Amino acid sequence: MRTKKLNLLPLKALNVDDFFWNKYTGLVTKEIIPYQWKALNDEVADAEPSYCIDNFKVAAGLKEGTFHGWVFQDTDLAKWLEAVAYSLSYEPNEVLEKLADDAIDLVGKAQQENGYINTHFSILHPGKQYCNLKEGHELYTTGHFIEAAIAYYEVTGKDKFLNIMKKNADLICEVFHTEKYKNAVPGHEEIELALMKLADVTGDDKYSDMAKDFVDRRGTEPNYLFNESKNEDFIDVWHDPNPYINEYGQNHLPVRKQKTAEGHAVRATYLYCAMADIAQKYQDESLFEACENLYNNIINKRMYITGGIGSSGVMERFTTDYDLPNDTNYSESCASIGLALFCRRMAQITGDSKYIDTMELALMNTVLAGIAMDGKSFFYVNPLEVWPDNCIPATDKNHVKPVRQKWFGCACCPPNIARTLSSLGEYLFMQSDDGLFINMFAGGEYKTTALGGFKKLDIHTKFPFDGKISISISDIPDAVVTTENSEANKKLYIRIPSYAHNFTIKINGSDITDYRTENGYAVLSKADIASAWRGTDIEINFEMPAHFVYANPKVRADAGKAAIKKGPLVYCAEQVDNGENISSIMVDITKPISEYWDENTLGGITVIKAHGKTIKNPEQYDDEALYSDTPAELGYKEITYVPYANWGNRGAGEMYTWLRRFC
Amino acid sequence: MRTKKLNLLPLKALNVDDFFWNKYTGLVTKEIIPYQWKALNDEVADAEPSYCIDNFKVAAGLKEGTFHGWVFQDTDLAKWLEAVAYSLSYEPNEVLEKLADDAIDLVGKAQQENGYINTHFSILHPGKQYCNLKEGHELYTTGHFIEAAIAYYEVTGKDKFLNIMKKNADLICEVFHTEKYKNAVPGHEEIELALMKLADVTGDDKYSDMAKDFVDRRGTEPNYLFNESKNEDFIDVWHDPNPYINEYGQNHLPVRKQKTAEGHAVRATYLYCAMADIAQKYQDESLFEACENLYNNIINKRMYITGGIGSSGVMERFTTDYDLPNDTNYSESCASIGLALFCRRMAQITGDSKYIDTMELALMNTVLAGIAMDGKSFFYVNPLEVWPDNCIPATDKNHVKPVRQKWFGCACCPPNIARTLSSLGEYLFMQSDDGLFINMFAGGEYKTTALGGFKKLDIHTKFPFDGKISISISDIPDAVVTTENSEANKKLYIRIPSYAHNFTIKINGSDITDYRTENGYAVLSKADIASAWRGTDIEINFEMPAHFVYANPKVRADAGKAAIKKGPLVYCAEQVDNGENISSIMVDITKPISEYWDENTLGGITVIKAHGKTIKNPEQYDDEALYSDTPAELGYKEITYVPYANWGNRGAGEMYTWLRRFC
Repeated sequence: MRTKKLNLLPLKALNVDDFFWNKYTGLVTKEIIPYQWKALNDEVADAEPSYCIDNFKVAAGLKEGTFHGWVFQDTDLAKWLEAVAYSLSYEPNEVLEKLADDAIDLVGKAQQENGYINTHFSILHPGKQYCNLKEGHELYTTGHFIEAAIAYYEVTGKDKFLNIMKKNADLICEVFHTEKYKNAVPGHEEIELALMKLADVTGDDKYSDMAKDFVDRRGTEPNYLFNESKNEDFIDVWHDPNPYINEYGQNHLPVRKQKTAEGHAVRATYLYCAMADIAQKYQDESLFEACENLYNNIINKRMYITGGIGSSGVMERFTTDYDLPNDTNYSESCASIGLALFCRRMAQITGDSKYIDTMELALMNTVLAGIAMDGKSFFYVNPLEVWPDNCIPATDKNHVKPVRQKWFGCACCPPNIARTLSSLGEYLFMQSDDGLFINMFAGGEYKTTALGGFKKLDIHTKFPFDGKISISISDIPDAVVTTENSEANKKLYIRIPSYAHNFTIKINGSDITDYRTENGYAVLSKADIASAWRGTDIEINFEMPAHFVYANPKVRADAGKAAIKKGPLVYCAEQVDNGENISSIMVDITKPISEYWDENTLGGITVIKAHGKTIKNPEQYDDEALYSDTPAELGYKEITYVPYANWGNRGAGEMYTWLRRFC
Repeated sequence: MRTKKLNLLPLKALNVDDFFWNKYTGLVTKEIIPYQWKALNDEVADAEPSYCIDNFKVAAGLKEGTFHGWVFQDTDLAKWLEAVAYSLSYEPNEVLEKLADDAIDLVGKAQQENGYINTHFSILHPGKQYCNLKEGHELYTTGHFIEAAIAYYEVTGKDKFLNIMKKNADLICEVFHTEKYKNAVPGHEEIELALMKLADVTGDDKYSDMAKDFVDRRGTEPNYLFNESKNEDFIDVWHDPNPYINEYGQNHLPVRKQKTAEGHAVRATYLYCAMADIAQKYQDESLFEACENLYNNIINKRMYITGGIGSSGVMERFTTDYDLPNDTNYSESCASIGLALFCRRMAQITGDSKYIDTMELALMNTVLAGIAMDGKSFFYVNPLEVWPDNCIPATDKNHVKPVRQKWFGCACCPPNIARTLSSLGEYLFMQSDDGLFINMFAGGEYKTTALGGFKKLDIHTKFPFDGKISISISDIPDAVVTTENSEANKKLYIRIPSYAHNFTIKINGSDITDYRTENGYAVLSKADIASAWRGTDIEINFEMPAHFVYANPKVRADAGKAAIKKGPLVYCAEQVDNGENISSIMVDITKPISEYWDENTLGGITVIKAHGKTIKNPEQYDDEALYSDTPAELGYKEITYVPYANWGNRGAGEMYTWLRRFC
């Protein structure tokens, strides 16, 4: 663990303009933020109403009425504001900023004298607060508002929202150190990571101390959440007849003793984010070790090839090692966002690029699959295998949707995807006193002081469909060079992805081969460049041919199957390309895979073809008995694969990520 | 459809004493009935209390207290009494009969003046009745008591219980023809088939008319169940926040328009039983056609190879055609009992042995798997594939248990299995004026008048492990022979199972080959026997070699897999014989299967061996990454199969019915 963490670059300085990502980031300002605003105001005709803005108006005394929606409905506004903040960093928009300012005013008006903000409790139970941490989601909600307020402050420089949330955070620091709450923890983690950010921004360690207390208390006795319903002021929110399950909220063991990822996957990853932040800030080795254990458990035993996590459709939770069913899983979009956030933090505190591999996997497969290519519909649940006919309500496939949904009453995933895409720059780079880290490859114009003075990086690439990345480094005038930021001391760390073959670096047209590598990064320093970073052209090349991937045989669900990956992208076979009943198709892993660029499919992708077999005369089975003594006859089949991230954009149909293979 | 249905033989005349079945039927008197009585009286230390007898005492005013348990808790006693009645038919037991008489007295004391019996409503809502048909289960409960009363009457000749239940049935016939209830139907079917039996026993058609009304009303407008909660006297039983689903209770379409089996599988099959009974009695062709459509939909599209039905773990329901997942299914033991009862009725009204094939399949696989070989524990849920590690609470495998449970608070399956086993005779034979039908092959001594006069059949066989069945027919003295029951007019119908190869019949040592076959029965008549049925020795021989079975390719879950069947028995591979991770094993369908008798395994079974492959070095994957570019190396594996009916009797472990195959 590093004594000083690697910081993110300020979003304002990062102008992503990328061949691949523009398809998605463009949707945020063009489609999602306006749509989401309408949704918050219940103006989307064919979607479930959110009631969110209405709730704030009622809580602020500006409107008669009562509370509607989920107990965590306020977070819709928080995530919208966060996405707006990020979007303003790369696309200033006065009208949008005015909308946001007004919404922030509304939040301020709904804030109580003591700093408390939560429309559910303010409206339905005035005067009550923190009386059901298990289900109430007040701390979770505040966490999202703090994240939004920090983003808004950092992008716009306006501190009103930040001050509103500091007052709320101050209340939390006070309340949760009183005798009654001295062992209390949030039912849904999120406040912890938000308080860590707040400590960073304000420089006030009382916030990080509170976060650390929350994390240290979790899973210890007396178990506050388990016993909370006996409190006199307890208010039953969901009238849930089921007993409280400690594992569900990672409340079963002290966090340093947790060696397996358990419970609700979003809760879990948000907790792990805070653990990583705290481990670094307090240089807490045992907490860092817990983070490593949990990370290893996830990626070695509990993660889908797509970076999806949470394999149970019931309770959206982790189950057991190697239990990764492809058709009944939850694999929530938000859980993969949480995983990406956790991995980013682990990379920030270790400088190890292996975490970026996982982060990229989650972002470029499950998170992107969560949003339609027109930005108008979303998946919560990300199965690896879908047969639309059996995704029907009131069955155990109830949660699996063969087509993306417009907007959910419980709108966690769509705004979470929006804020992730609009803060994409935060996933691309890290910096230290030592230099600049390039984590993910995306074209754009990026300003930084991490290479000494004021530099600009122009990056061009067709990644992930091509492994060539061109980086031009130039000076920005007004550079103030001191000894500390002298170019001579700075290094450029370029991630070597785990999937890269024949990774080469050219500097100003010449191959360099003797560069140092460290933790999965190629480290370029003064020795490697002619004179200074300015005027340096770097060309990276690597190959990432499409290839078959096999699961550990302990994964029962993938026995005898093969998937296809190309670089970070997982591919899948869809009915629209391969016909009905993909379960009948077997792929021949001994034959070569071909790949070609197709401008006209799914907005431009590399399509993959493989050889295989399938049932020769499927129509003969229409009226055939269920069971027979004769196996079906097979015939040749060419199989077409497209990126998993893009599945379900061409109507409802079957989709398989893992195909049976000849053994 | 026959104008006169084939009747069952009275249980009193049937003394099953069979190589195969004794293992199970013996458990009923020895283990289940005494255990169940303790359970009803809350005297089983390590099982959930039933409260059943206590509830009756409270309702009868014999004890202070309140109601405990499920709303249908009374049925525990009904099913126990039914099982006791059947058991007394082959094993008289004065102590047990006295217990039953006392319990019947108790039921009588708990009966209200107007005939109403239901301890839940009598205790918790005195004076209220039939105010929540959707959830209240009053009619369902009464149905089970009527079935028990009829069994008790037929075996013991005592009519007290029958009269109690007639009074309850009379109330139902009255109430459910009043204006308020004129379109009302039961939420859980069962009363319909019970009323059909009551009409048979009493000769009073008002009961069958009521049953027919219930069946005719189902799925018609105005939809009583859907609108019931708006009634002034509605009492919410389960506070279920979910909306009522018409399909769940087969209330979505008029029954004659139902072409696919929908909803809760137990409810469905109990309804179909009544439909078959009514179709025959009222010679209602359209209703009979509906029965055929539903039967065909089940066996051609919605039934497991084991005769299990209801493929969704959620709501224990049918889903869609070909949706037959092996590891998340419900396939309730009671649903297969329901299917067997439906098939038996279809055989009774058609004389077609194809229904017996399905009945036998359900009984000899799923129903038998439902009970441990020591009779002390039970499965509700019958998966075809189990990996114990992931059968954990609060996930989508919550309902799947890797080991049988002692007794459930909701005790439908154990007593249902008990009453099925103790009434086994009812599944073996049918009779008509024309003669005797042998449906299933079980050793024993069976008295009948169906072959003219009073005859006795001694049957010896080692079926299902051997295809030789010896039948000796002899006279019982005191035969009163009239023209009607003259031996000369009688035929013996012997079922030719669909799985039988080289089916041959010897009469008194000589092969006969020119016998007539009809609807899957070999028909033996006077022409085939020397002179008379008395003194006739019949030997049936057929082969039923173990063989591979393949599912229709539309069954996604079984793609590329093979199962093994021998006669009616489905086989499976267990961890105890094959080691861990059965998903790694592939079976070679091109190599011969061997089978051998093993006295020492599972109480004596035919064990099956097949050739295959599996992962060569499984231990190397313990610390291996989840995903790799290299497929695992395979090596030879001999695979051991045992009957599915017997799985899970040797500790918890993996079990697979379908194995992957070389294609």
